[in-house]
Amino acid sequence: MKIVIAPDSFKGSVTALEAALSIEKGIKNAFPFADTTLIPMADGGEGTMDNLVASTKGHKVPVTVTGPLGKQVEAFYGVLSDKETCIIEMASASGLNIISHSERNPLVTTTFGTGELIKRALDEGYRKFVLAIGGSATNDGGAGMLQALGMQILDGSGSPIRFGGGALHQAHEVRMDLFDQRIYESHFLIASDVENPLVGKNGASYVFGPQKGADEQMVELLDRNLSHWADIVEAVTGIRLHERPGAGAAGGIGGAFQAFFPATMERGIDVVLDYCNLKENLKDANLVITGEGQVDFQTVFGKTPMGVAQTAKDQNVPTIIIAGSVGERIQTLYQYGVIGVFSIMNRPMTLKYAMENAEELLEHTAEQVCRTYFYNQEGVNRDEN
Amino acid sequence: MKIVIAPDSFKGSVTALEAALSIEKGIKNAFPFADTTLIPMADGGEGTMDNLVASTKGHKVPVTVTGPLGKQVEAFYGVLSDKETCIIEMASASGLNIISHSERNPLVTTTFGTGELIKRALDEGYRKFVLAIGGSATNDGGAGMLQALGMQILDGSGSPIRFGGGALHQAHEVRMDLFDQRIYESHFLIASDVENPLVGKNGASYVFGPQKGADEQMVELLDRNLSHWADIVEAVTGIRLHERPGAGAAGGIGGAFQAFFPATMERGIDVVLDYCNLKENLKDANLVITGEGQVDFQTVFGKTPMGVAQTAKDQNVPTIIIAGSVGERIQTLYQYGVIGVFSIMNRPMTLKYAMENAEELLEHTAEQVCRTYFYNQEGVNRDEN
Repeated sequence: MKIVIAPDSFKGSVTALEAALSIEKGIKNAFPFADTTLIPMADGGEGTMDNLVASTKGHKVPVTVTGPLGKQVEAFYGVLSDKETCIIEMASASGLNIISHSERNPLVTTTFGTGELIKRALDEGYRKFVLAIGGSATNDGGAGMLQALGMQILDGSGSPIRFGGGALHQAHEVRMDLFDQRIYESHFLIASDVENPLVGKNGASYVFGPQKGADEQMVELLDRNLSHWADIVEAVTGIRLHERPGAGAAGGIGGAFQAFFPATMERGIDVVLDYCNLKENLKDANLVITGEGQVDFQTVFGKTPMGVAQTAKDQNVPTIIIAGSVGERIQTLYQYGVIGVFSIMNRPMTLKYAMENAEELLEHTAEQVCRTYFYNQEGVNRDEN
Repeated sequence: MKIVIAPDSFKGSVTALEAALSIEKGIKNAFPFADTTLIPMADGGEGTMDNLVASTKGHKVPVTVTGPLGKQVEAFYGVLSDKETCIIEMASASGLNIISHSERNPLVTTTFGTGELIKRALDEGYRKFVLAIGGSATNDGGAGMLQALGMQILDGSGSPIRFGGGALHQAHEVRMDLFDQRIYESHFLIASDVENPLVGKNGASYVFGPQKGADEQMVELLDRNLSHWADIVEAVTGIRLHERPGAGAAGGIGGAFQAFFPATMERGIDVVLDYCNLKENLKDANLVITGEGQVDFQTVFGKTPMGVAQTAKDQNVPTIIIAGSVGERIQTLYQYGVIGVFSIMNRPMTLKYAMENAEELLEHTAEQVCRTYFYNQEGVNRDEN
């Protein structure tokens, strides 16, 4: 009996790996000798590096880098089990999650640390990169990252511009002489669902600025600065980022990759599905269990559970979803190979209680689901105590 | 695919039949052509008549009788599908459920209506009786019932005593001449879990009087009166009810059956299991689904789900329990053939919400459970939309 366990995180409660471990515990309660494979899932956002490293049994490398506010922080890059693919999670070096709420200020936050992570990985010989760019604290158009990689972005007096989206208007000249040439020997796969352009009402500053700490006035300033920066980039590369879809991802770092890197962009979940070994592990599986905090009819249009279910259906493996909340019209999921949708609630309780006890509740539910699912399976090693 | 649906009621929310119908709806959502058999369960308490009539496809007969307070009420007796067995639910004629809370007064409430129900059934030719005596509003030692069946219970002046436990001290003489002789041609199976004696601190008045509306002083009076009544019964029959186990059931009507009827007493759940056709229907079933409001490790010592599970296990049919709340250490149920225990909660919610929406929640849960259980079953007619 082989079961693949591929949940997303339960937001605000447990990480994907914690969820997977709890589900595994429940399965083992029912069938101590079950063959379980943990593929903690992500959709390209926060946790993607940890989950890909965990699901491929890769490893993480700590690097001290410049944090979003200029202070040194300990960040990580991940190396997948192929020992070739390097996964960089931008949030690790330049994320909202490593500064306090009151420190959010996209006028000064920089992507410099993300550039340092890439540089270190290049030093170590890696040339194949997956970038998860969700959760950034920055709106600097990727200028910091480019500087860390040797690009000289100079003001009118020939001095390097300062960090942050608030300084981009000073950019006057870009010099590529010292830009790290190893980048051109590499490939960068950018995991991003953001299709916003760099500037304008649908651009990085207007759409994502506020959640990074920008007020109305700052948003206008940041947008003007990104527009100026895009003019400079266009002058250097001929590539016009202003209206380019995806250029507005992660405070404009999407545009930096588009203009200066051998890079392709893919939907986060597709990148994760490509690299997490789910497909390989499904080959001889009897069942896959996925899950996330909330499942309803919109899950069909969503990410992780649908991605898992569709991948599993291609291999004729049925999917069971375990969720915190199960909403309306989940019957639409059946056609994608989902055979059952179960909530972790086992009695009337508050959301707060459920979130605080998610691990125990996941374990319980997985136990009951597996006992029920495998009852009719031939040759099941059942433990009747 | 044959599924037996045998839940108890979900107290305060849905009856056993409503629960069974909701579960059936969920099953049919998953498998429109599933062969389902509804055996709404009871443990001998309220609802026993309705459930046995429903599960055996019997019928109910309305009879206007004297209610607990002397007013006419419409009561029912049930006839099982064998057309021979008559089921009398005492609560239908003499129950707490047919008077208001403020009317509760065991000094005056009478079992006369229960006697009238029996009399009518005797008139119709029935001689085989099952009596469910839970939920009575009375503490009259069964005197009212005996009067309805022709027994003369007279006071010192030769007049019939009044109704109610408060009048029993007037009983001076019992005349059997007019007592309905057809009783002796009959058999009465009393479904009762109560082993209390008729009088004393463990007797009917002390233990059950308060819930029927007796205050401390009334309890003492009722107990003295029952003791006096038991003296009279002993003088007439030689049977001493005072300390006799079970004589205190249903305000002492248990004792009346013991002294004057060809009667045997059995645990309620055992009577229900004997008469509800569960065993017969389990013969070629693939699965039985039972349930009740609350399931936990104490369920092992309990009634309906355990009774169902054990009966099913004897026939090698697995049991799934669907409950409102699933508590601790339910693993103890596995050894009794329970393969899965599922809560109807599908998101964080209050008890009130769950109780008000139990039908929809039961349907949803049954659908998911059956899809999951039958997935590995050969030859399942699965509807993938």
